[in-house]
Amino acid sequence: MTITEYKDIYKRALLDDVIPFWSKNSIDKQHGGFFTCLERNGTVFDTDKFVWLQGRQTWMYAMMFNQVEKNQEWLNTSIHGADFLKKHARAEDGTWYFSLTQEGKPLVQPYNIFSDCFATQAFGQLYKATREDEHASIAHSTFMSILDRRDNPKRAWSKAFPDTRPLKNFALPMILSNLALEIEHLLDKDLVARLTQECIHEVMEVFYDKESGQILENVTPDGQFSDTFEGRLLNPGHAIEAMWFIMDIAAKNGDQALIEKAKNITLHTLEYAWDNEYGGILYFMDIMNKPPQQLEWDQKLWWVHIETSIALLKAYKLTKDKRCWEWFEKVHEYTWAHFADPAYVEFFGYLSRQGNPLLTLKGGKWKGCYHVPRGMYQCWKTLEEMEK
Amino acid sequence: MTITEYKDIYKRALLDDVIPFWSKNSIDKQHGGFFTCLERNGTVFDTDKFVWLQGRQTWMYAMMFNQVEKNQEWLNTSIHGADFLKKHARAEDGTWYFSLTQEGKPLVQPYNIFSDCFATQAFGQLYKATREDEHASIAHSTFMSILDRRDNPKRAWSKAFPDTRPLKNFALPMILSNLALEIEHLLDKDLVARLTQECIHEVMEVFYDKESGQILENVTPDGQFSDTFEGRLLNPGHAIEAMWFIMDIAAKNGDQALIEKAKNITLHTLEYAWDNEYGGILYFMDIMNKPPQQLEWDQKLWWVHIETSIALLKAYKLTKDKRCWEWFEKVHEYTWAHFADPAYVEFFGYLSRQGNPLLTLKGGKWKGCYHVPRGMYQCWKTLEEMEK
Repeated sequence: MTITEYKDIYKRALLDDVIPFWSKNSIDKQHGGFFTCLERNGTVFDTDKFVWLQGRQTWMYAMMFNQVEKNQEWLNTSIHGADFLKKHARAEDGTWYFSLTQEGKPLVQPYNIFSDCFATQAFGQLYKATREDEHASIAHSTFMSILDRRDNPKRAWSKAFPDTRPLKNFALPMILSNLALEIEHLLDKDLVARLTQECIHEVMEVFYDKESGQILENVTPDGQFSDTFEGRLLNPGHAIEAMWFIMDIAAKNGDQALIEKAKNITLHTLEYAWDNEYGGILYFMDIMNKPPQQLEWDQKLWWVHIETSIALLKAYKLTKDKRCWEWFEKVHEYTWAHFADPAYVEFFGYLSRQGNPLLTLKGGKWKGCYHVPRGMYQCWKTLEEMEK
Repeated sequence: MTITEYKDIYKRALLDDVIPFWSKNSIDKQHGGFFTCLERNGTVFDTDKFVWLQGRQTWMYAMMFNQVEKNQEWLNTSIHGADFLKKHARAEDGTWYFSLTQEGKPLVQPYNIFSDCFATQAFGQLYKATREDEHASIAHSTFMSILDRRDNPKRAWSKAFPDTRPLKNFALPMILSNLALEIEHLLDKDLVARLTQECIHEVMEVFYDKESGQILENVTPDGQFSDTFEGRLLNPGHAIEAMWFIMDIAAKNGDQALIEKAKNITLHTLEYAWDNEYGGILYFMDIMNKPPQQLEWDQKLWWVHIETSIALLKAYKLTKDKRCWEWFEKVHEYTWAHFADPAYVEFFGYLSRQGNPLLTLKGGKWKGCYHVPRGMYQCWKTLEEMEK
């Protein structure tokens, strides 16, 4: 297929299928916010509201309004999500609950700092559309609070006994590397510069294990390998997703060496994690090839494959390394052959190792209106730039 | 096969294979306690110590000493586990940590009340062998502390927001129904009688859903169904395991009606959860057939199948319902065809839906020296009684 043909697939799926699917099925007109637990045909099967996904969908519609088209319905949908979040999702200290009932009552405590990250992302993006001070202020204060508790993100809910085996996790610096660019317009320039440098250092030097060429999920506070279940854990999708965040920063800074390094890590991770028996990318691995604790280790997850397509396209666009294009075609083919639903739009989220749907849902506790449409947008736009 | 042939399989596997496997591979002579993270051939692949499994193995060897043979090596092994637990596994308030390093430093806080349950079980059983006051006293005080915090087992580590959606979980009454009999010798007679009545009521009336004939994993505080992810959850292995605990109590009390009810629930659960496509018993289901949150829902777990064999044999022995024997033969065949390792002793723990090893470990964070040997002992002894 040509670049243009690929581009059209992502663009059309985003605009004709995916966004309409969420617009039609996920909006809770009675209580506000979004339903995300949707069966394959879009039927709501559970009404709980997960703050990660409320924030992500709020962001998605604002981003579409800001980047694709000034479609008032998209903006209204984003505001619909933001209003629900504003009204219900914050605890007294300003941190964000993990989940709420349909009506907005808190269900799960604000133990998870990523709720705060996606709320920041949502209000920061929405502010670009509304220019409402309140949206900027929520994004800004939430972001500052994230920075304040970076070293103890789970607070009182952490089950780790202090100091026996301190480890730091990859997810937060990874998300911050994206978030700092997302809300750049609300932050002091020096803070953005300092943060992005810190994130690049953490992702590309601290969590990157030179010897193996892998990104580790957890390292000691001074960046050493820990020969423990957590220390040995690899999450290839996470590592590859981070690589396109890094490539975005590097492209902005014109840092070709960093682009090259991120491209190489993407390819190396993918070669390591590709399932040569059944195709697709494994979810979890152990760097010493020991049994992982995650029973879902061999499953194929939608976001892993979509984020990989984005990383490969960006890497190809920025480096012209042919291996990136070849891998993109292979991942694209696997993704559309297995995650796409022959009967309805949007993607399945969870496949068995063999590539069959393990669950037929289109949305749940962790899958919402985010990786699929964001990925389609990113692939579309990257391919479009390559056409030029 | 005849009853005697089946009996010999379980007896020989227990005495010739399984107990020697753990005796040979799991004892940490340097720091005390047990390694439980063992590859298929018995090699230690991780040295963390999980208090559930330390307690369970301590119990297992004491039980073997008390019930099978006054083998001093077994008693020494149990004391070896108990000494490690005594020295390292209790927090200042007497509650039990979840996990420790190899040396015994606390890794994970005492958030999990089942650590306390298995410690109670271990010291209660060991006391029968040693008659040491300290063993009795640890078992007794831990048990009383469990009763004290039954209504709030996770304490400060609970992530549930108070009162929005209070639910109670099946696991604790289920374990208590077994534990009350286990440490009967340390408790006031009235307390045992009251507790077993409470447990029977909870398991057979509160968590048992009359309409569907299923045992629910979570219900509202007044015993109602909750149409939520947690409320819809079924764990068939859990339900069936509880049925043999109940049959033990009922047999002791000569309550044939209760035996009959437990037998019927066993068969009904098994018929519901049997995977007609690939064989074996599914791990998790949703009572309304909605997508469960557990990505491992379709996997086949060792303990589920072993506990089911025990329940079926006890049910057959107590009721002579032929369906129990027919099901036992079917579950036995599946278990030995798929969980048994053609190359080494002990069972695989985790199979894919298709029945192939998902992980080849013989022990890990959750699988130790417990369900396999306890199950072999229970099957052996139940079959032996049926021979008479």
